[in-house]
Amino acid sequence: MVAATPTPRTAPDAVPTRPARESAAPANGELPADAVTDVIVVGGGGGGLPTALFSRWLGNEVVLLEKAPELGGTARKAAFWYWVPNNVPMRALGLADEEPDFLRYVARLARPTAYDPTSPTLGLSQWEYDMCRAIYESASPAAELLAEKGALEYRHCPDVPDYWSEIPEDKAPTGRVLVPAGARESMSDGGAVGVASMSAAARRDGVDIRTGHRVQRLVVRGGAVVGVEATTADGHTRRIAARKAVVFATGGFTHDVDLRRNFLHAPVYGGCAAATNEGDFLAIASPVGAQLRNMNYAWMCPVPLERAVARDPGLIGMFSVAGDSMVFVDKTGRRVVNEKLQYNELAQTFFSYDGDKGEYPHLVLVQIWDQRSQDHSASDEYGRLIVPPGNDDSHVIRGETLEELAEAIAARLEGYRGVTGGLTLDPDFVSTLRRTIQRFNGSAERGVDEDFHRGEKPIQFVFNGPVKEEPGRSNPTMWPISGRGPYYAALVTGGTLDTKGGPRTNTDAQVLDDTGTPIPGLYGVGNCVASASAQAYWAGGATLGPIIAFAHRAAQAADREPSRELRELAPAGS
Amino acid sequence: MVAATPTPRTAPDAVPTRPARESAAPANGELPADAVTDVIVVGGGGGGLPTALFSRWLGNEVVLLEKAPELGGTARKAAFWYWVPNNVPMRALGLADEEPDFLRYVARLARPTAYDPTSPTLGLSQWEYDMCRAIYESASPAAELLAEKGALEYRHCPDVPDYWSEIPEDKAPTGRVLVPAGARESMSDGGAVGVASMSAAARRDGVDIRTGHRVQRLVVRGGAVVGVEATTADGHTRRIAARKAVVFATGGFTHDVDLRRNFLHAPVYGGCAAATNEGDFLAIASPVGAQLRNMNYAWMCPVPLERAVARDPGLIGMFSVAGDSMVFVDKTGRRVVNEKLQYNELAQTFFSYDGDKGEYPHLVLVQIWDQRSQDHSASDEYGRLIVPPGNDDSHVIRGETLEELAEAIAARLEGYRGVTGGLTLDPDFVSTLRRTIQRFNGSAERGVDEDFHRGEKPIQFVFNGPVKEEPGRSNPTMWPISGRGPYYAALVTGGTLDTKGGPRTNTDAQVLDDTGTPIPGLYGVGNCVASASAQAYWAGGATLGPIIAFAHRAAQAADREPSRELRELAPAGS
Repeated sequence: MVAATPTPRTAPDAVPTRPARESAAPANGELPADAVTDVIVVGGGGGGLPTALFSRWLGNEVVLLEKAPELGGTARKAAFWYWVPNNVPMRALGLADEEPDFLRYVARLARPTAYDPTSPTLGLSQWEYDMCRAIYESASPAAELLAEKGALEYRHCPDVPDYWSEIPEDKAPTGRVLVPAGARESMSDGGAVGVASMSAAARRDGVDIRTGHRVQRLVVRGGAVVGVEATTADGHTRRIAARKAVVFATGGFTHDVDLRRNFLHAPVYGGCAAATNEGDFLAIASPVGAQLRNMNYAWMCPVPLERAVARDPGLIGMFSVAGDSMVFVDKTGRRVVNEKLQYNELAQTFFSYDGDKGEYPHLVLVQIWDQRSQDHSASDEYGRLIVPPGNDDSHVIRGETLEELAEAIAARLEGYRGVTGGLTLDPDFVSTLRRTIQRFNGSAERGVDEDFHRGEKPIQFVFNGPVKEEPGRSNPTMWPISGRGPYYAALVTGGTLDTKGGPRTNTDAQVLDDTGTPIPGLYGVGNCVASASAQAYWAGGATLGPIIAFAHRAAQAADREPSRELRELAPAGS
Repeated sequence: MVAATPTPRTAPDAVPTRPARESAAPANGELPADAVTDVIVVGGGGGGLPTALFSRWLGNEVVLLEKAPELGGTARKAAFWYWVPNNVPMRALGLADEEPDFLRYVARLARPTAYDPTSPTLGLSQWEYDMCRAIYESASPAAELLAEKGALEYRHCPDVPDYWSEIPEDKAPTGRVLVPAGARESMSDGGAVGVASMSAAARRDGVDIRTGHRVQRLVVRGGAVVGVEATTADGHTRRIAARKAVVFATGGFTHDVDLRRNFLHAPVYGGCAAATNEGDFLAIASPVGAQLRNMNYAWMCPVPLERAVARDPGLIGMFSVAGDSMVFVDKTGRRVVNEKLQYNELAQTFFSYDGDKGEYPHLVLVQIWDQRSQDHSASDEYGRLIVPPGNDDSHVIRGETLEELAEAIAARLEGYRGVTGGLTLDPDFVSTLRRTIQRFNGSAERGVDEDFHRGEKPIQFVFNGPVKEEPGRSNPTMWPISGRGPYYAALVTGGTLDTKGGPRTNTDAQVLDDTGTPIPGLYGVGNCVASASAQAYWAGGATLGPIIAFAHRAAQAADREPSRELRELAPAGS
């Protein structure tokens, strides 16, 4: 039985979401405006919601503008772990997390080639160092405030390790992760829970929420940002003026193919950010002098090729690669990576470059598993590709024998030649795959992966997914692949949760110009601005923890801004 | 004998050249200006000189502003090959180079994961496709005009192959390379020759050349670029107004560590661009709406670690890795790459990432050679590290035995721990190196490198450098490494000739805003703007050939601009 090959679905990747993008050239003046408020927050996801809440709790009038029809952004799809150094429950448990240790850990991973424990900034730039200190200082107070106000109550995860808990620089290897209190035991629905509770608090506390508003450009006067113009779903332009500040929290550029190709360090295939994350802030902020930074790196994860190419809005990154009797092989049939690596590092594998052939030989890897893993490791959480009956399994390729499986894989790949540089299986794929399985099975029997060290680090068990219990097994990430079919496969490549580059901000989240001076009135938080994490994915929640910290700092700094008296633009100019 | 370890020299990498950089916020108005001209060209290197000449020959008054005390930029250090598809000498020789074939070749290499021969744009973006067509159309007429006018006479290199001459998409594998006519046989001094002849022509034909002028910002009026402000070496600000256009040709951002780290796809160590190439145009162009593209890729080359770290202005990229009895090994003592790969591809090797250990294991490789290569392959050209007596050999590490050599390498590396993420040799380095040499020597005897395919492609012989002749040898890139010392070594990492990202321009070299509309009066040429080559280094001279093509197109388009009547800024603003 060769599985039928579905017609490949490809989406024109750069088609913008509605309302459509218009010119980002700034508009002049302040009034007349359709609304006037103290603080405008642009974006209603994991950065915008806490920014709006913190601002409101400081007594500000807040208008929150969201491009999508509903709140939540990428966070709504996430597990919403948030990484909070030196958090209150850690301290209660006596888990030490001193700032100098924290800084060494983050610096070692952010810039591994520049890391220097003897340097005053540990090899980071002064800006990166200062931003990391701000994370340490503000993540916990911000998390506590959200919890106290009932907007985001949390559950502490004392046993969840950092993604690099084994390196000597990690002096607090577990305990920094919080999750929304109401999330299920597996924590996979944390985003839905957290977005729901923050949205409810925003409505309760009087944040003026306007969905379906795409901010197109800034309104400026005398060099200061004094508002925005947004397009509504029905095609109207609305001008909103701000007495104090405009804070962007609009996410990255995962869904703009042109930006991805021209900035990211690797030719990724989209990802699981909210479909509205098209990098709007890049064009909007540049004309007032913003300077882009950290544009090369992203929060990376493996993704199933077909869904990434189709721009499936329901795509979830493969945060967990399930199965023990399971391997990834390349087009030759060889294993090339530890399949249980944390997702950000696993995703780098696809983009190794062969300078002799001028190609990316691992651009698409094939996940292969047997009936055992299908029966015992199927799951509909964390983007796993081994799914239980009743779930969308259009990405699954089947064969009763390895020969049949290979034939079906080859047929599936054929439909994607146009987006993989013509990738095909090598003629010897099946025989090489047999040898690969034989070698893997020997490693699985011994519980030791001499080739790629699968199951040697704590984090790899966290993301191992459900497996059939086997008494006395030392390494639950591996089990021999059966000599009998049926066999299953799926095509895997590299994508992003979201990007993490954009305008550079200071530790108060103010957007900076080329001299390092804040652009009056303009703030940015989250994946729409430059992250000081550089290439690192420090831990689960290393996205949202720092974002909440800077949301708090942005709200405090915006609150301190003098309240501007708004006025008409004089006819003759400034 | 263990060689003395010199004190490592590191330079504060982001210290700008003089005059110092100031705020890039645009100035308003047009007059009063210190000078008024038709066309301002900013930058006097391989892009600016031909732009100024083409503009002048069209009858325009031209002011050329150069930041450095002398003309030439990066081109002065280069061999100045220029890659010109379908050039006149090719046609004279009957070498066919049809546009559709050319486009398939460039598309296949620019975007290998997106290349699709059935796509109307071959998998390129429409912009990339159009720009590549412009190169094909204009490179030859531009080269011919420079030659006819005596500004840059050329010699055709009918036998020099493209860097990927062996791929099926290359239908004109040799013949596209021209070099300045007066260059020596080895062509290594082509840049000095070409810059001298173009500079002489510029002076002869009345280009107003002003060196020591650092352009700080644009002068704008009513949304149009009408001039620039520059700082002189003695600290004065000069405003120059342009009746027609301002053309930037200021090079890339090789020498700004902050920009490198925040945009490039790999953590490179500087490179051999002119020391003035600090990315000035990025901050200058953004405030008028320019959109950056191709910021992730660069023209790459290996570089000697010490000189790159010291920011040695005399650094030449390793365009040719000399020696036959020579290997590169990593910190474990293993070969990891074909040492004779073309430089751009060889330079990628240093940046392969190990997601299990969180490090770049090949960040620094060690070139090792014996007395034979020292005696017969020494050269002071093309950045080779095996240098003849009398040359600066401070990068050379010596040992009478492999043990002594390893000790000296380890000592040298120790001084660079702070800039290599703490890189050290593995304890088993010497024994692994012995096995590596043994295996390499077997390959050299057979003339076949089963591991890395050294000497299997035409381009690898072009860059092989001088070697001792051996009768009957099939593969002149390899010879067994001697069992007896002395031995020599040098530390090698990856750098850039220059970067190739910046504002996006159209096929007339006009800088475009976020809607794809030209920003009136603003043009860009060369490495300061976005290259449509994406990740590709198509051939020797694939930098300068396209640059000359766009210099020609920029000059023509600027000439067609209506001549503005310049005026004072009205006090009330426009």
